[in-house]
Amino acid sequence: MDFPALLAASVARVETGLDCHLPGATERPARLHAAMRYSLMGGGKRLRPVLLLAAADLAKPPVGLGEVGADPLPAAVAVECLHTYSLIHDDLPCMDDDDLRRGRPTVHKAYDEATAVLAGDALLTHAFALLGDAYSDRPTLANALVRELGRAAGSRHLIGGQMEDLLGEGKASATADELEFIHLNKTAAMLEASLVMGGLIGDLPEPHLATLRTTGRQLGLAFQIIDDILDATADTATLGKTAGKDAKDGKTTYVKLHGLEASRRFATECTDRALAAIASLPGDTFFLRTLATTMAKRSA
Amino acid sequence: MDFPALLAASVARVETGLDCHLPGATERPARLHAAMRYSLMGGGKRLRPVLLLAAADLAKPPVGLGEVGADPLPAAVAVECLHTYSLIHDDLPCMDDDDLRRGRPTVHKAYDEATAVLAGDALLTHAFALLGDAYSDRPTLANALVRELGRAAGSRHLIGGQMEDLLGEGKASATADELEFIHLNKTAAMLEASLVMGGLIGDLPEPHLATLRTTGRQLGLAFQIIDDILDATADTATLGKTAGKDAKDGKTTYVKLHGLEASRRFATECTDRALAAIASLPGDTFFLRTLATTMAKRSA
Repeated sequence: MDFPALLAASVARVETGLDCHLPGATERPARLHAAMRYSLMGGGKRLRPVLLLAAADLAKPPVGLGEVGADPLPAAVAVECLHTYSLIHDDLPCMDDDDLRRGRPTVHKAYDEATAVLAGDALLTHAFALLGDAYSDRPTLANALVRELGRAAGSRHLIGGQMEDLLGEGKASATADELEFIHLNKTAAMLEASLVMGGLIGDLPEPHLATLRTTGRQLGLAFQIIDDILDATADTATLGKTAGKDAKDGKTTYVKLHGLEASRRFATECTDRALAAIASLPGDTFFLRTLATTMAKRSA
Repeated sequence: MDFPALLAASVARVETGLDCHLPGATERPARLHAAMRYSLMGGGKRLRPVLLLAAADLAKPPVGLGEVGADPLPAAVAVECLHTYSLIHDDLPCMDDDDLRRGRPTVHKAYDEATAVLAGDALLTHAFALLGDAYSDRPTLANALVRELGRAAGSRHLIGGQMEDLLGEGKASATADELEFIHLNKTAAMLEASLVMGGLIGDLPEPHLATLRTTGRQLGLAFQIIDDILDATADTATLGKTAGKDAKDGKTTYVKLHGLEASRRFATECTDRALAAIASLPGDTFFLRTLATTMAKRSA
């Protein structure tokens, strides 16, 4: 299979996993479970679960030997639940106040604010519960996955990044240091965790886990810089979310701080560093390598 | 020691644990970590962690044999983090819209709404991360604790109860069934989980875990009915939160549905069922027994 077919197959696997591993939309309370599914099933790149599955697949035995080890799909669902909760809460009126996400009304618009807060809380909780349940026959692995996700998603990383992002709004001069803190924690930390969790499930040894962490960090930085570039240059229809919001909100971005050209150069450098890391990973790295290159060229 | 001294010692142990097991208030981002500590360190009954410690202590060996097994304190801190996050989010303007909690401004009043959402998210995440980190040398126990907390705190229980509670507001005629769903899930589920988690740490066998679950459920029902009674009869200064809110919000309560006298009788029946369950537990049950009796007589 070529890369687009492999990517489509991975995304399809994630979509199936989401459907299997979430409470049914009619389970009581139906409004809550429907809102959880509304936000999760609205498409999106599925970048984090796809990265997790790709890292887990590095350890795959040659065809004919059969599958070994734990199924990475529940963990892939868990990271997507985690990511989706963070989007729901970030979109709230008291936060980024966004009406559109992936081209559809955000959860607090489609339902209401209280349901959006609770649906986010429930997806966050479900991420950890799912790791605990799905890997209970391998408790050491389950524990490693919970710790990795808990670290990346916590107040020192994902949530801390969002907090500093909010504190920086309207501030005329966020520094390069503040911006790096936000990008490393708000975006890169969860890409790191996704790759490392895949590596843990694939039972990769520590040096490879460290390489996966480097890969995720550089991909995350590249991803966020490109986000800033697109917010400044693309239109709302292409993005599926409101364009030009960063400038309107007075947010400091890479583009504002360093200009478009330097931002593009820095994104390329980060991608190159990710590719160099990927080159030292075991197994067939074609998919990860091409994914990194494709991410660097995205337009939405 | 008599009961008040034992209770004070247990609460003091929890307070110390909270201070030890939370990120420092000056850690970056300081506003987030300060808000987490503000909400956690505002007093409160510490009922859930005290129950967890009490259940873990049932398995304690006689004095002289020394302590064995895992330290229950990190798990006690985790359940208090979980409970506190649920209070922060419940108090938000889009939810119950409360300005006072434990006699102090709620987090969104003392800070702002965005910080309150994030501080809640961070405490929820921290609860799971802490279980993963603190019990990593006993991964089977860590896994059991994560699963128990994940179940109780999820969309089918704690969050589901809050969702149904919100849906019922302003509804003239919530049924007894709807009210029971709310009480069982919004309140009792976390008391059950706290006792069961203590039992898991104390390595109690399954029949005793089931008894702890029954105890928590009955204490939870009693607790919530008494909450309804106090909201209808006590004043704001005594409660440390706004009194008479349920009637103002048009909420269906036990008192509204069954009247004061029947509510008091039902609270007593639940407490009696909890006491009967406690009587069949191993070890010294004096503390748990007296705690159950004291809870039934509380006035705030």
